[in-house]
Amino acid sequence: MISWVENGDPRARSVLRDLKPPQARTRVIGLTGAPGAGKSTVTSALVRAFRARGRRVAVLAVDPSSPFTGGALLGDRIRMQEHATDDGVFIRSMGSRGQLGGLAAATPQAIRVLSAAGYQVVLVETVGVGQAEVEIASEADSTVVLVVPGMGDSIQAAKAGLLEVADVLVVNKADRPDTQATLRDLRHMVSLSTSDWKPPIVPTVGTTGDGVDELVGRLDQHDAWLESSGELARRRLARARDEVTALVLGTLAKHITVPDELAARVAEGRCDPLEAAGELLDSAVTFKELGCRDRRPPGQASPPGTG
Amino acid sequence: MISWVENGDPRARSVLRDLKPPQARTRVIGLTGAPGAGKSTVTSALVRAFRARGRRVAVLAVDPSSPFTGGALLGDRIRMQEHATDDGVFIRSMGSRGQLGGLAAATPQAIRVLSAAGYQVVLVETVGVGQAEVEIASEADSTVVLVVPGMGDSIQAAKAGLLEVADVLVVNKADRPDTQATLRDLRHMVSLSTSDWKPPIVPTVGTTGDGVDELVGRLDQHDAWLESSGELARRRLARARDEVTALVLGTLAKHITVPDELAARVAEGRCDPLEAAGELLDSAVTFKELGCRDRRPPGQASPPGTG
Repeated sequence: MISWVENGDPRARSVLRDLKPPQARTRVIGLTGAPGAGKSTVTSALVRAFRARGRRVAVLAVDPSSPFTGGALLGDRIRMQEHATDDGVFIRSMGSRGQLGGLAAATPQAIRVLSAAGYQVVLVETVGVGQAEVEIASEADSTVVLVVPGMGDSIQAAKAGLLEVADVLVVNKADRPDTQATLRDLRHMVSLSTSDWKPPIVPTVGTTGDGVDELVGRLDQHDAWLESSGELARRRLARARDEVTALVLGTLAKHITVPDELAARVAEGRCDPLEAAGELLDSAVTFKELGCRDRRPPGQASPPGTG
Repeated sequence: MISWVENGDPRARSVLRDLKPPQARTRVIGLTGAPGAGKSTVTSALVRAFRARGRRVAVLAVDPSSPFTGGALLGDRIRMQEHATDDGVFIRSMGSRGQLGGLAAATPQAIRVLSAAGYQVVLVETVGVGQAEVEIASEADSTVVLVVPGMGDSIQAAKAGLLEVADVLVVNKADRPDTQATLRDLRHMVSLSTSDWKPPIVPTVGTTGDGVDELVGRLDQHDAWLESSGELARRRLARARDEVTALVLGTLAKHITVPDELAARVAEGRCDPLEAAGELLDSAVTFKELGCRDRRPPGQASPPGTG
């Protein structure tokens, strides 16, 4: 089912439409941070901690960096092998090819599938530090941003806007010498925040599991705050809006065709691209004229593959 | 002018429309690679080399990683200070906020401005390794991908699809011990390529300038091949198409509004997002109904700010 979502298979549509919302809410926890921050190790430690609390846990490892290979993340899956024989744990990598609306649309679809399949916790791990990662992190109810000791990484994280999406900050590899300085930097950055929720800062050592129980506790606190403050409802509404927008744009993107003659005029400098875009919008007044899928009459089921 | 482009200022539109194409073709050279590969140092060395050949050179340092800060890249600008007093050199950083169509649209607009201003070489340096970087690299006529010795980076570059966009591969910091192994890896990867142009592999030491003259020679060869093979015309046509598409989508994205009631149904799991997107597309049959800008009657000039 996730493969269908990932590949934009039309069969995904009918199954997604018929999925029942789960009885209990699924907690979606995002993990992001620079390469080498130890995301897989911390994710694996979190899986262990949630399993010890009796929850069924799914891990989505999302790699938005590769338009070409689909991002196998084999190394990460190998590192999580300890959970391979536990049928309360599901681990899946997702690349960025093929989906209507990109990962911004495919990730929530996959989360919905996992939720319907009875996973109570979904950990969404993203690779790298970029705008795509920030967007995927924003699909989560709680976002954990990992940095490692050493000033470079926290600056890098700040530059990428990751600190602004952090609900919990983790300084992983906290057995390294620079840990205190990094904690101090981050505390200073957090003290400047004006939001209602000040992200707690948790030092961890993913490889030994040190600090992971505190991390789970902080995540529970954040989850309780999300519910009590009304922030959860607000975030879910904003996400629904973003997801629908991404799908609409994805549909439109598939159907925009720049005529050869117009492209040639732009390429030769005889027409400014902004003018060309205006011309295209002027000429294609309706979606249908833009080449969009046939609109079905109201009330009639759509044939497969038209989504 | 570039600030107008960067901020999506409506004044950019009229100026862009009136720009005359330059008399001679501007060569656009992209440089990308993982953080720490030494892009700024190599860029600076290339500026020196092209200046020595009497060309006017512009550098666009593009940071797609930050949706929040706009990416000041102060450090990079400081490292290029040696060119600060040379009025044949123009250096500018660009962030990712505000533009209609994102950096995919803003970068070529900025290149067009620089070309009209008489810069014969535009070096577009991107930070990081991700899909956005690959897209920006594809705005260049010739793309230089930098790796540093050590297997990790070349794997990282391959994973991100960077090798597939490389016209010239540079192993920078080639005074490091692992250089030979990295050169061997890359030669193997290149030998598997089936494209007409096999990217040459150039070892450089950006800090001393070693290898930079060879790099310029390889870039000249690639430029000659682009012209003679017809590839230049093909790339420029494809880019024109992409740019117009990005601008059309950017316009549409600004005007898609998901109604509150629909968003709430999706957030509460009462409506599948794909169905919701279909509903929105069905209800908004024309761009105008989607809330798009008023279409001007044919032949009438558009008022400012409607682009």
